[in-house]
Amino acid sequence: MSNTRGKETSILLVAQVIFIVLFGLFVDYGERAGSASHGGHNSTSEVAGEELTFDQFYPMYQDVHVMMLIGFGFLMTFLKRHGFGSVGFNFLLTCYVIEWSTLVNGWFGMIGGSTNKIHLDVESLLHADFAAATVLISFGAILGVASPVQLIIMATIEVVVYNVSIYVGVEIFKAVDVGGSIFIHAFGAYFGLAVARMLYKKAQTEHTKEGSIYHSDIFAMIGTIFLWLYWPSFNAGPAVGNERHRAVINTVLSLSACTVVTFAISSVINKKGKLNMVHIQNATLAGGVAMGASADLLTHPFGALLIGSSAAVVSTLGYQYLQPILQKRIKLHDTCGVHNLHGMPGILGAIVSAITISAANMDTYQASFSIFNWTVPQQAGYQIAALAVALGIAVVSGALTGLLLKAPIWDNLTTEELYEDEVFWDCDEEPQLSQSEKLENGTS
Amino acid sequence: MSNTRGKETSILLVAQVIFIVLFGLFVDYGERAGSASHGGHNSTSEVAGEELTFDQFYPMYQDVHVMMLIGFGFLMTFLKRHGFGSVGFNFLLTCYVIEWSTLVNGWFGMIGGSTNKIHLDVESLLHADFAAATVLISFGAILGVASPVQLIIMATIEVVVYNVSIYVGVEIFKAVDVGGSIFIHAFGAYFGLAVARMLYKKAQTEHTKEGSIYHSDIFAMIGTIFLWLYWPSFNAGPAVGNERHRAVINTVLSLSACTVVTFAISSVINKKGKLNMVHIQNATLAGGVAMGASADLLTHPFGALLIGSSAAVVSTLGYQYLQPILQKRIKLHDTCGVHNLHGMPGILGAIVSAITISAANMDTYQASFSIFNWTVPQQAGYQIAALAVALGIAVVSGALTGLLLKAPIWDNLTTEELYEDEVFWDCDEEPQLSQSEKLENGTS
Amino acid sequence: MSNTRGKETSILLVAQVIFIVLFGLFVDYGERAGSASHGGHNSTSEVAGEELTFDQFYPMYQDVHVMMLIGFGFLMTFLKRHGFGSVGFNFLLTCYVIEWSTLVNGWFGMIGGSTNKIHLDVESLLHADFAAATVLISFGAILGVASPVQLIIMATIEVVVYNVSIYVGVEIFKAVDVGGSIFIHAFGAYFGLAVARMLYKKAQTEHTKEGSIYHSDIFAMIGTIFLWLYWPSFNAGPAVGNERHRAVINTVLSLSACTVVTFAISSVINKKGKLNMVHIQNATLAGGVAMGASADLLTHPFGALLIGSSAAVVSTLGYQYLQPILQKRIKLHDTCGVHNLHGMPGILGAIVSAITISAANMDTYQASFSIFNWTVPQQAGYQIAALAVALGIAVVSGALTGLLLKAPIWDNLTTEELYEDEVFWDCDEEPQLSQSEKLENGTS
Repeated sequence: MSNTRGKETSILLVAQVIFIVLFGLFVDYGERAGSASHGGHNSTSEVAGEELTFDQFYPMYQDVHVMMLIGFGFLMTFLKRHGFGSVGFNFLLTCYVIEWSTLVNGWFGMIGGSTNKIHLDVESLLHADFAAATVLISFGAILGVASPVQLIIMATIEVVVYNVSIYVGVEIFKAVDVGGSIFIHAFGAYFGLAVARMLYKKAQTEHTKEGSIYHSDIFAMIGTIFLWLYWPSFNAGPAVGNERHRAVINTVLSLSACTVVTFAISSVINKKGKLNMVHIQNATLAGGVAMGASADLLTHPFGALLIGSSAAVVSTLGYQYLQPILQKRIKLHDTCGVHNLHGMPGILGAIVSAITISAANMDTYQASFSIFNWTVPQQAGYQIAALAVALGIAVVSGALTGLLLKAPIWDNLTTEELYEDEVFWDCDEEPQLSQSEKLENGTS
Repeated sequence: MSNTRGKETSILLVAQVIFIVLFGLFVDYGERAGSASHGGHNSTSEVAGEELTFDQFYPMYQDVHVMMLIGFGFLMTFLKRHGFGSVGFNFLLTCYVIEWSTLVNGWFGMIGGSTNKIHLDVESLLHADFAAATVLISFGAILGVASPVQLIIMATIEVVVYNVSIYVGVEIFKAVDVGGSIFIHAFGAYFGLAVARMLYKKAQTEHTKEGSIYHSDIFAMIGTIFLWLYWPSFNAGPAVGNERHRAVINTVLSLSACTVVTFAISSVINKKGKLNMVHIQNATLAGGVAMGASADLLTHPFGALLIGSSAAVVSTLGYQYLQPILQKRIKLHDTCGVHNLHGMPGILGAIVSAITISAANMDTYQASFSIFNWTVPQQAGYQIAALAVALGIAVVSGALTGLLLKAPIWDNLTTEELYEDEVFWDCDEEPQLSQSEKLENGTS
Repeated sequence: MSNTRGKETSILLVAQVIFIVLFGLFVDYGERAGSASHGGHNSTSEVAGEELTFDQFYPMYQDVHVMMLIGFGFLMTFLKRHGFGSVGFNFLLTCYVIEWSTLVNGWFGMIGGSTNKIHLDVESLLHADFAAATVLISFGAILGVASPVQLIIMATIEVVVYNVSIYVGVEIFKAVDVGGSIFIHAFGAYFGLAVARMLYKKAQTEHTKEGSIYHSDIFAMIGTIFLWLYWPSFNAGPAVGNERHRAVINTVLSLSACTVVTFAISSVINKKGKLNMVHIQNATLAGGVAMGASADLLTHPFGALLIGSSAAVVSTLGYQYLQPILQKRIKLHDTCGVHNLHGMPGILGAIVSAITISAANMDTYQASFSIFNWTVPQQAGYQIAALAVALGIAVVSGALTGLLLKAPIWDNLTTEELYEDEVFWDCDEEPQLSQSEKLENGTS
């Protein structure tokens, strides 16, 4: 059994001290959160215009916040003996990344500017959650096979390269990706997959503890459904005006179609014609991923349905057929199947955005045409270029990160310790198993 | 065991293709979600007035959205072997109805108008969720006794007749029912009960699998509480200004009183003086149902408490005494007791609205008097007339739908397959049972 | 076994009748929820300014509402045989207090005023939830050892003394405490601890049923995480403008740092270097408590991190070392450890506010200086004075309440009935236990 004392702990305490110092040096309140220049505490807000930004952002921010901790956290509780680790390390990673990405996002935001202070407002908090989402997607690929120390190391590196990818893709290539198909989902998935490939051990693919039980699958549905419900806020959060409104509509439609098609495909491809909980928990969300890069575009409502339906097909088939092949052929073990939920649907989203943009013109878009930063064909091309760069950075930096994590100094797990809460959590009690399982495991 | 392959699947895939085509023909973005005529993507919203609608609707829409999937979905997980089906088919039905009701609601909205396009905005999404709520209420009556194909057929029909009922009640009779006591709760309940009556089998009433276990009852409380919490948004969502504010206050008060009284009645009527989880999970919500038709009226705060308290009495006594009688005498099996939670409290809500309206006058209502579309006595009368028409349509169309569903071509369930996830879900593992139950069922 | 019939029930029914009468006499809609003077039902809101208050409050109100029922309710489900009682009595208490505190808060609000009516709006609902929070914190101290009747008696008294404490602290001393570190958390904790001390029985400290099982700990994490997520709304709810925005930022930062440090300390102090679920479920929230009194002050972002980190240390060490000592030495049994989560972090919050205020000046605060009601040193002093008064009132009134509850007329629990749902709930079925536990308890 690993002993996490010292290593994990000293990293977190040291990190926290460093964060406090760096926040002291670099971070301050933004203009609307600092010392008020208006009427202050006891006045009701006569200054409606000034307040709008906060009031518009905050409900969507909270929705995204729920996606991080309830959504991702509970989605990963499907493992029968890893509920504490799934919810718990998801919680730790999110909090760690909120602090760290506030700094790193802020530093990248300073490039080319004249200020050397990071000014916080609710939009910064939203972007901190986006960075957390990226890390949590990568976490899904190595769920149950990495120690908290390894996860913290990974998060520390990933937040930096995530910002590099966005800097190239958004600042230089000026790609549009309001809901993060490219920079969050595809990036997070392929970074995590590269790490997973490096950490691969033969034993993990036939492990008796990698599986769900009846109740853990219901806990996981809490995660699925909150992700599904609040995804429109994720895709629309950074947009304003009509674009924001449209992003919500497109995402609701895409997710609805995706869910219907996932149910259909899941039973078609099952040999007994039955539904598979893994598909329902995951592939139903692929419509949100694939809609991300085009959420604020004029895909039209039927287009949103088409995108969601396609994402369902890609994702469900990925879980059923591609994932076992990747595991066998290229030794890629992907605990949550992030390749099927975030990887391929993210790529699909980038391609869809390029196609949608190719059909854009000033007449139909009118003022919304200002979404674009280039001519139509250029913008379509830069979408694909941004995807290519994001994938390249993700795979290379993920592989290097994985190599680093293989160093035997990070509380690395032995084969018996995989997918098991008892390694890191003080739970004397045996997790509840069905009778048959207990007999099988010889613990009864 | 039924094999759902082919039937269920081809219906869903065919439906999805039809939806995409129909959306292409009929559905477009609304004015505020289409191509922007204002500053667009990078501008902060100077046009505060224009944005208000979206920002006011969206948080309430999300609350209602949570009620559909977490609320209804988890409320129904109380069954010990039907957690996947409860959450899963609730998820499927909601998504299917969001698509289908967007079309049907839109077509009914065209009647008498000059446009042949359905223009989507966040309010349309809210109304799609209201249609979903109606179908999910009906689902509760036949939970565990219908196949997904039967549920989809039912939903397809119900969304149409739900719109007919609203057309007559709201467009012609001009009844007021901001929170849907009549058109959502009573309609959905009696439609579902009529279907349930047709699908009745003797065996289902003494089934060992129709019951809860300790953990499934706690999962169900997640559903109860989210329904309870967000019900004010359900009742206030379509209202504006003071009416919306009042609807929130009335609903919070009604639900609070309802909960207190439910706890009281539940222990009074139990022979050991103990509380019954079925009452706490369900009857605590009856105050939201009964408040629906009067939420925006001047019921006064004490009136809201009175309505909630009455609903608790009706609903709790319904679960305890009426439901067993209906099952025995008229062969009505109602898995979730929707008659007690939505049926009778919905009727109560309609009657309360007629009484409240009878006491209305211009002096007390001032500008809020514009809620009404007739003289006070006429409006009160039309409330009852709308209820009668809604119930009539619900019972007749529900019965016909039930007859259709009895045709042995929809994956109908055999007696052994009732309330059992294994029929439609690929779960090799036995659901967790307490030891005593296992022995009783001979599965250990 | 206690028989709750009659006692519990008659109290609740009588209370509900009294509430209806008192609401009829004293409570009416506030100006913006009453009979509308503007365009009414069918108009979209041209009167943006007028609507702002409701639209700004409502999403935060709903967040706080979720904290009450999902947050507190599920946090307390960690007990293996008390899930129904934790969620259920939490539900009952919240609803009862919403009604009762609407009256009591309103009556206290009348002091010195000329009106004899309580005018309700969404802000009153928020303050009713704050009173509920205070009672629910006290509930945590006696979870599983008090009957519902005892809880209702306690809530009835506590809401009154809670208002006395606020009257002295806020109206007279003019202390600032936007997020309730002093008046909600410290007050609720020490009131509950005083009650718990009076109800102490030797047997309760070595009870086999006081403990968690694997799944109950995961249910509890639902509570933890919703509390964590929506805490910014709790601390910022009563603030406006820049202060509100700042309170959100400060609370998110404080909670994030608190979580990171809790994970670190929890494994450091565990002899096997493992994480303790009790710490993760509770101490991660101490950053929200400690931030409360300073949330709208200029603590600066690094200060918020420092406050959260300190709260984590205090809270985690409290759970690990102080709680067993208090139990042994002063016979204080605290089921949920509210002393560690609300008591000490609440005191820390008051001290932090005094320190932060001491550093305030007009130059840095500008218009935000109007938060303060005295000169800077006076304000700092009154923060501590308000804390002292709140603690004094809490301990004395809590002890007297506890004495009253010891009278053997309130369905008091015997030793065998502690921490056991079967006493008050009609659950024939044995809660699910792991095999080993069953053998140990001889129930298999």
